This record gives sequence, structure tokens and C-alpha cells, in this order.
Amino acid sequence: MSKPDPIQATDDAARKLARRLIAQMRHAVLGTLDPDSGAPLLTRIAVQTDRDGTPLALLSGLAAHTRALQADARAGLMIADGKAAKGDAMTHARLSILARALPADPDPARRDRWLARDPKARVYIDLPDFRFWRIEPVSGLLNAGFARAYRLEPADMLEPPAP
Amino acid sequence: MSKPDPIQATDDAARKLARRLIAQMRHAVLGTLDPDSGAPLLTRIAVQTDRDGTPLALLSGLAAHTRALQADARAGLMIADGKAAKGDAMTHARLSILARALPADPDPARRDRWLARDPKARVYIDLPDFRFWRIEPVSGLLNAGFARAYRLEPADMLEPPAP
Repeated sequence: MSKPDPIQATDDAARKLARRLIAQMRHAVLGTLDPDSGAPLLTRIAVQTDRDGTPLALLSGLAAHTRALQADARAGLMIADGKAAKGDAMTHARLSILARALPADPDPARRDRWLARDPKARVYIDLPDFRFWRIEPVSGLLNAGFARAYRLEPADMLEPPAP
Repeated sequence: MSKPDPIQATDDAARKLARRLIAQMRHAVLGTLDPDSGAPLLTRIAVQTDRDGTPLALLSGLAAHTRALQADARAGLMIADGKAAKGDAMTHARLSILARALPADPDPARRDRWLARDPKARVYIDLPDFRFWRIEPVSGLLNAGFARAYRLEPADMLEPPAP
């Protein structure tokens, strides 16, 4: 049986959609490797963009996903379209990223930027077990709806370097 | 620093919530192990319950997650509360399952049961590359909102055996 390749050639519309999905996200599903079983552990996390457009998570050290990332930096991220709350979720645009998660400094600019978009985080952002993690994309799979899928490189998802 | 255990003792209210989340799901985020990198690959899939309450997925053999499951049965599943589309998603109930995914026979009862809840699947359910997979729970992590988390065994999530 011949299998048609469901992946289309990446174009600027796909890049624009991927960047919009990343820019608007406030939460996402994180995938980590469960240290005990090696299975993919899925958790919902708070996530925004860092200054360069890289996904930035604010994670508690008490959570299972943080222990998993401390043992193995390999991560996945499922970003849904926050504006598409109605209708059949299988037709909504979404972006799946394979990534490496690395701890990030809680410098004041990063902290202030986070709080500007998530003021309620003020309650826990300074607790000693919370810290930032950069979820650095390695590759992406963009699903723009039925039969429209694209494989993306990091440069297709992140903001272009400032001129 | 002493770390409080954020996990509460599993009670019947937690079991009831987990079973409701599983019973109402029509889609979920699947985690598989990317065969190339070993990283957790997250994709949105169509999923319902099988007769015994086990999550049942209908997957295309053309999809990356199916190739991943054929290489390694370890899977994760993130089930959100379909009735909680509004408000802060971080406060919505959700269930994360660690599981083993196993191909399931497309017997007529299973096929009819699926189509009764997903009539639009009639367009592709009989295509040769589509098949059912049982996502058999190994353990679960139920988040019922901030600071209410429970670890679940399979018996806490599946329907009790018929008397």
C-alpha cells in the first residue's frame, strides 16, 4: 500500500501561525520522561514566551515534571489555539514541539515580564521552589487542521533576530 | 528546606471525578516516545472509552504517534474537563495517565460504539491505515484544581467489574 505523505512544505503562512500560537499561549501541556518508568508524563503548565520568543515555563520544584526535567532535559510541548475554544477540537490549530528544557535565571526583567502577563503568579513566583525553565525547540509539528501538517525547524517558530 | 507533599489521599470523590473525566472525553493529548530522539512527542487524538472504561483511541498508521507506539508501547494521556472551557485553564480538573497502548480488534461492536459517539468518523474509520488502540492505564495523576492532587491506581479510574 502506498502511503501519501501528509506533511506539506513549510511556507510563511505556517511560520506565522506557529509564531501566533506560541505568542498567545499562557498554558500548555508539557511532556517529560517519567524517571521511574521512562513513559511520557503529561502535565498542564503555565507558559509564556521569553524575550526571544522561546517558550518559558514557571515550574514548582515539588511537581513531578520538574523532577523529570532535572533527570532528563528532553521535553515535549503541546500548544493549542487559545482563541478556538468552540467546535471540534480535532480541527483546531495546534503546535507540538520537541524541545530541551533548561533552567533560566530569575532576573528582574524576566520576572517582571512574566508578571505583566500573569499577575496572579505574584502569589507564588518568589517561593523558593519555583523557577523558570526555557523550553528550547528542537523541532515542531504544526497541525493547521485536517490534512494540513507541517514540520518546522526552530527558526520557523522563534522570532527572527532583531535587525 | 522541608517540602510538603502536595498529594492527597485518594477518596471516592477523586475516583468519581477521574471516571467522569474519562467517560466524557472525545479527544485528549497523547504522549508517545519519539523513535528518533526518545523525547516525549505530544499529539491530539480522538479518544473515547472502550466497553470496560479503558481509553480507546482511533489512530492513523500515517501519524507519527502510531509509528512511535509500534516501537514502544509506553504512552501518556492528558484528559481535560470538556465542560470547563472558560476561565483559567490552570484551575480546571484534568487527569494525566501513564499507560501502555495496545492494538485492539476492530470488531463490529467496538466500531458501532465508536460511531454512535463520533458519527463523522464514518468517513475514515474503515480506511486500511486506521485502527483502534487501547490505552491501558498503569497509573494516574488527578489534578482537581490548585493544591488538590491525587495519585490513582487503574482500579480508581476504570469502571468497576459488572456484578
